[in-house]
Formats: sequence, C-alpha cells, structure tokens
Amino acid sequence: MVTFDARYAAPFVREHEWAGLQNAVTAAHETLTAGNGAGNDFLGWVTLPTDYDKEEFARIKAAAARMKEDTDILVVIGIGGSYLGARAAIEFLKSPNYNAKPKDTPDVYFCGNSISSTALQDLLDICEGKRVSVNVISKSGTTTEPAIAFRVFRAYLEKTVGVEEARRRIYVTTDKARGTLKGLADREGYETFVVPDNVGGRFSVLTAVGLLPIAVAGCDIDALMEGAALAQKELCDPDIAKNACYQYAAARQLMLRKGRAVELMVSYEPNATMLNEWWKQLYGESEGKDGKGLFPGSVVFSTDLHSLGQFVQDGANILFETVMNFEQPQREFIIEEDPENIDGLNFLTGKSMAEVNRKAFLGTTLAHADGGTPTFVLNVADRQEKSLGYLIYFFEKACAISGYMLGVNPFDQPGVESYKKNMFALLGKPGYESEKAALEARL
Amino acid sequence: MVTFDARYAAPFVREHEWAGLQNAVTAAHETLTAGNGAGNDFLGWVTLPTDYDKEEFARIKAAAARMKEDTDILVVIGIGGSYLGARAAIEFLKSPNYNAKPKDTPDVYFCGNSISSTALQDLLDICEGKRVSVNVISKSGTTTEPAIAFRVFRAYLEKTVGVEEARRRIYVTTDKARGTLKGLADREGYETFVVPDNVGGRFSVLTAVGLLPIAVAGCDIDALMEGAALAQKELCDPDIAKNACYQYAAARQLMLRKGRAVELMVSYEPNATMLNEWWKQLYGESEGKDGKGLFPGSVVFSTDLHSLGQFVQDGANILFETVMNFEQPQREFIIEEDPENIDGLNFLTGKSMAEVNRKAFLGTTLAHADGGTPTFVLNVADRQEKSLGYLIYFFEKACAISGYMLGVNPFDQPGVESYKKNMFALLGKPGYESEKAALEARL
Repeated sequence: MVTFDARYAAPFVREHEWAGLQNAVTAAHETLTAGNGAGNDFLGWVTLPTDYDKEEFARIKAAAARMKEDTDILVVIGIGGSYLGARAAIEFLKSPNYNAKPKDTPDVYFCGNSISSTALQDLLDICEGKRVSVNVISKSGTTTEPAIAFRVFRAYLEKTVGVEEARRRIYVTTDKARGTLKGLADREGYETFVVPDNVGGRFSVLTAVGLLPIAVAGCDIDALMEGAALAQKELCDPDIAKNACYQYAAARQLMLRKGRAVELMVSYEPNATMLNEWWKQLYGESEGKDGKGLFPGSVVFSTDLHSLGQFVQDGANILFETVMNFEQPQREFIIEEDPENIDGLNFLTGKSMAEVNRKAFLGTTLAHADGGTPTFVLNVADRQEKSLGYLIYFFEKACAISGYMLGVNPFDQPGVESYKKNMFALLGKPGYESEKAALEARL
Repeated sequence: MVTFDARYAAPFVREHEWAGLQNAVTAAHETLTAGNGAGNDFLGWVTLPTDYDKEEFARIKAAAARMKEDTDILVVIGIGGSYLGARAAIEFLKSPNYNAKPKDTPDVYFCGNSISSTALQDLLDICEGKRVSVNVISKSGTTTEPAIAFRVFRAYLEKTVGVEEARRRIYVTTDKARGTLKGLADREGYETFVVPDNVGGRFSVLTAVGLLPIAVAGCDIDALMEGAALAQKELCDPDIAKNACYQYAAARQLMLRKGRAVELMVSYEPNATMLNEWWKQLYGESEGKDGKGLFPGSVVFSTDLHSLGQFVQDGANILFETVMNFEQPQREFIIEEDPENIDGLNFLTGKSMAEVNRKAFLGTTLAHADGGTPTFVLNVADRQEKSLGYLIYFFEKACAISGYMLGVNPFDQPGVESYKKNMFALLGKPGYESEKAALEARL
C-alpha cells in the first residue's frame, strides 16, 4: 500500500550506495527484532496492530456511538503524542475543515496543548450552549498544559450540566493502574481507556489515545487497524531491496551523511498538514538527540510553492524532500470549459484537478532536482483509513530503523524535561527552590 | 513597540561582533534608502504605511461594512502573498478558530491556494445554503490555482443567486489597468481594488490584498496602518545600536555565518501559527536564492516543546531561534485552586496563565541555550492591530536589510517559475510543446 521511489533522487545517489547501506539496515533490523536495543521497554507499537485489547476497542466504538447521539462538541485534552495523532488522522481522513462541514458526528476541538489563555477562552466561547463531552488524555495526569485545561473543563461541565451528568461526559485515557488521573477517574466513575506502558506518546496513535477521538469523528478504526496490521506483516524483510520502509529509513541516513541537514515532508493535499506535524514529532523527538538528527520540516504544495518553494528550488542546498503522493483523491472535480477562456485555462478542460495536481507534483519534483534538491517519493494508494493505518506503521517502523542506524535511542525524549524543570523552578514549584535563584540571575 | 533582545544568545556571540556588523548594515541601509539596489522596482512597501490610496482605503471599509450585513461567508481566492498575509492577520488578531467563534462578522475561508479537489469540494459543502461573497486576488488573473477556484465560485454564485446578484458579491483585487481579471471586472462591473505595481506579493498585506479580508473579519485596519506608519518612522536609524529592526537583520546574517542553517520562528501563542507561515514566505522567498539563505522553520510552543522541542534542546546544533514574545495576552485566565489538588498544580493558584506561559518561555530559552541553541527575542507590546502593523513593517524592513547583507535581490522570486513551466509542459499547455517530451522522458 506504500511504495518507495528513489528515481528522482538518482542524480544525487549512486546506485551502489544502496547496497552499501544494507549492513547498517540489517543491524538495525536485528536490534529491533530481537528487542535488545536502546529503549526496548517501549516496543509495544511493533505488535500493537495485531495485539491490542479487543474489549477496550469495542468500548471505544461504543463511546463514539454514544457521543454521536449526546454530544455536539468533544473537547480532547492532551499534548504531544496525546494530541497530534488524533488531530492528524481526523484532518487527513475527514478535512481540516471537519468542524465546519455538514456532518452527523460531533465537532472535535483540541485543547490543553498550549499555555495560551486566549486559546482556552476562545474554546469556552465556542462551547457555549453546546452539549460538550471531554476526553482527557494524560498518562500521569500532572502534565501542566492538559492538567490546567482539564481543571477548567471539568469545572465547566460540573457547573453547566451538574456533577452526575459530568461524570457521564468525561472520558479519561490514562495509565491502566497508577497516577492521579486514574485515581480520580476510579473515584468519580469516569469511563477510562488505557495508555499502554510500553508505547511512547509519539507511537500511541493506534491506542485509545488516538482511536477514541478518531472514532468520534466518524472514521473507521477497524480499517485503520487493518491497514496497520498489513504493514506489520509486510514490512519485515531485512533485505533493503524488498522493503520500502527500510529504503526510506536508509535514504534518510544517506542524505544526512551527504550533509543534508533538513528533511522536508511534502504533500500536495491540505488534508495532510497535521499529518506532517505528527511526522515531525515522530522523527524530531526520536532522532533529535546527542547533537544529532535531521531537522524535520514540512510543506503543503502547491500552496507553499508560492512561499518556501523559492528556497527549495534555488536556496541553500541543505534540504531533501520526501513526498507523500496519494494516488487517489478523496473527492474528484472536473474542470469545465469557460466559453470565453478569460483565464487561459481551457487547455485543462475536461481534466480532473487530481490530474493537474499530479502534474504539479511531477513538474515540481523535476524542477527541484534541477535546482539541487533530491526528492524521494512515498506512493500511497489513497487517503482512506486502511492506507493511513499502513502509513502510520510504515513511518513508525522506519523511524525505529533510522534511529538505530543513527546510533540513538529512538524511544526516549530526555530533552523534553529541560524546559519543564526550568519552568517549574521559575514558577516557584515546591522542590525546585535551589534552581530558582540561579535561573533568575540569568534572566 | 518592538524591541530586540540578544541577551539569551550572549554565550554564542561575542560583544564585539555586533560592531563588526555595522559596516554591512550601513551599506544595506544606504542601498535600500537610495533605492538603487537589486529589485528596486519593488520598494513600494517602504512608504506604503503613509503613502496609500485613501479613497480605496475608504472603499475597503465600506465593502467590509456591506459584507457584514449581506454575507455569511467570504471566500478569499488567492495564493502565496495573496493568501498568507490576510489569513495570518485574521488568525492573529481574532483566532485560529475565528470561523467557529460567535461573532457578528462573516466567516472567512481561503481557497485557490492549492490544486486539491477535495479541499475545493469541502468548501462548496460548507457554503451550501449560506450567503456567499467572493474576493478574488490575483495580479494577472491567470495564476493556475486561484484561476481554477474563481471559475468554480463565479459559476457557483451565478447559479445560486443569479448573474446580477453575483456581480454585487464578487470583489476583485488585481492590477490597476492590465490583465484578464481586470478586463473581466470592468466588463461585469465588479468592484475592484488594486495590487500595486511596486509592491511584491509577500510585501502586500498592507495593500487591498490583505486589508479587505482583514477588514471583513472585523479588524481595525486604521490601527493596523497606524502601527506600520509608526514603524516606518522609527526604524530608520542606520546605527545598529539604536535600531531593533537592523539588530534582528544583523543577527540573522551573523548566525548564518556561524553555520546555523535554520532559523526557527517561535511563538507561545497558537494565534501566531499563520503569522509564522507569513514570515516563512517573506524570508524564504526573499533570501532563498543563488544557493543561499537561512531555511525558515517555525514552531508554536509549548505545543511543539512536546514535538520538535527535543530536537531544539538536544539535536544537531544547526538552529537558532527567534521568539515573538507578546507581552500582553488578548484574554486573561486566572488559575483557580482545586481543594483536592489532584494534579499537584495548586502552586499555580491565583497565577494568570499568561504568567505561566511567560515562565515557560523564559525557562525554555535558558534550557535551549544550555543545549547549544541561541535565542533572540522580539518583544512585542501586545496582539492588537497597531502592534501587528508595526511588526509587519519591522519584518519587511529587516528582510530587505538582511537580504542585501546576504547579497541577493530580496524582491524577486525567479525559482517560483520553475515548477510552473514544468507543470504546464506536462499538462500540454500550448506553447510548451518542446519541453514536454524531454520532461516525460525523465518520469
């Protein structure tokens, strides 16, 4: 369902270089398969598509069906991996304008992913007079951003519909046994779903973390898991010539070794904007450590051909591109004739916009090669759930292989703690007194 | 209204380096001021805040007032500079959720900025049953993306409200005299606004290109221009020690010379997401040429501290950050006490979220410095219209100075034509026959 095409990067990669990467790919594959590498406590995602809690999966679908009846707006509270996967999937499968579109499923708004008072107040305005449900997603329950938002929305629900009804409208996705949020949920009787211990945040979209909001938006999560399961089955061959996923991983490391510092993830569909953001977390957080890593950037073309396009074409040669090429559009549009041909576009009459978009992709790819920027292409069948599930698993596995090839632990994120420690100290959180004065002296 | 603070980059820049940049700054300043540098046909933006068409400005406000009464949805058709500025300003001043919020001004949707049939169909669904007006923005009227969209929405309006009413609902922003769109507008009697000859697309947000949609969304365009006029007046001193705008320009070139390949524009407010995108076009298109330029990336923190934050903290040291620090939030929120303190956040009781957000900014900045990433800070008073006008002019002028320091023409975009030529050839556009076969052979 996903193939890798390196033909447009051929001027930048000699044919024998691929074979030269096989040893490193094999080593990474064996480390991942044996489960004896760095971060091996977090390999739950590897078998997740076939080895998940079927009872919980059924409860997710039941909760989504219930919300379809009793909810106008689902407020999803979470940050990082508890935010990006669900939003990416909903916008990709439905629309970036999902909330504005006519539909028979609830609006879905994401919250608790910043410390902006303005964003929070705006959302409270939008909720006014609507039937609101809340899905709070946090393993610990103490992460600052979602914890503040949950304080607010829990109080909002209790005030507007009463404590009893609020209990029915709060869905908690958290640790299966520990943590303050789990304790609260048990006491209040909130329905709970599990953030598995062995799946890191950025790999969690196919757990309840992502699946509940995705299901609420009316997406087919059975097909999503089916696609991921197919990828789990197919993307196992250590032979680089036979494994598109490993080809992509190897291509990334090859580009880095050639001095390309930035990978630009490209799509020609606005629906993929947040999928790009999900990808950026997956790769940036997995590989950006120990002074290493490719910086993950993203664009949506042709939109950004009229923005960053100039740089990609003719700027510093520090980039390479990876294009997600979706072969079938979700909805078609045929360009009609204008008898007056005022805009001179009648040469497009009778063509589908998808065909024009495809020619834009091909024309751009050739132009960028001429300008010194190599492009790799991931051909994806369509933008349906099954393909997305496959693509998610593809990116996750490629990330693990790429990270092991780079020599990092692809499953930790020690750097994320640094800002939190400083923030807590500056805010005067008990236990951080000793750091406070030293930090304030530097301001 | 905007100050530049380099204190957090001090470990990366020796004090004498600033003085060492003065000569280059002075030279760029003199080139810009004399108007004898590369691209000097496009310097209209320099005096635009004080030298604009007041009659047209009044018509913009009148058109916005009219649409407030007769329009539910304004569809803005444009790409690149005819898209990003207006969207950035509306989201920044109002909300990324502007359309969803309760308000007494029309929804504003942007279209004609991609070749996605799905995005176009989605918007047609949203328009169903609504009172729609259209603002098409294109200097020539023949740019593919907006031309396709305008074909569709012109036909849609003529079909749903009739030819006569459609004429009242179509607002055209185009060349003052030439082009097919101008010809059509004159013939049909559409109200027209002008894309000035001497202002490039990415510098056009303070012309009718940006001002009409911004005014329709209920923003105060008088204050916007007032802020820009203040910047025009204040940011003229060639002495780098006295000019925040030139300090920022110099800092960028300094970082590039130290091997930083990527500038990351940072905000701690989701409202600035599209302002970041506007900034990326401004700098990417102005400087990304002749094999040169800083790659412009962007993040919104704390959201992306749980995504790209790991890379910034601990990944490859190829980045520097510029933070837009807005000193006053648009809307405040005080964190209340939770008697049970379930999330352990009671140390924040009584604090405003803005204060927490500010401590996140300071804590992050110190952490990133420790991790090897320098941060420059642009302190902006607030997120009101006047400040935004000032900030827009600040970025435009800094871009010109930075571009001249880099040795490029900051006002052209020759690379944008490359993909178009290939696309036209692959689509069989008359006049491109000779290129077609050669391109197809490479596919």
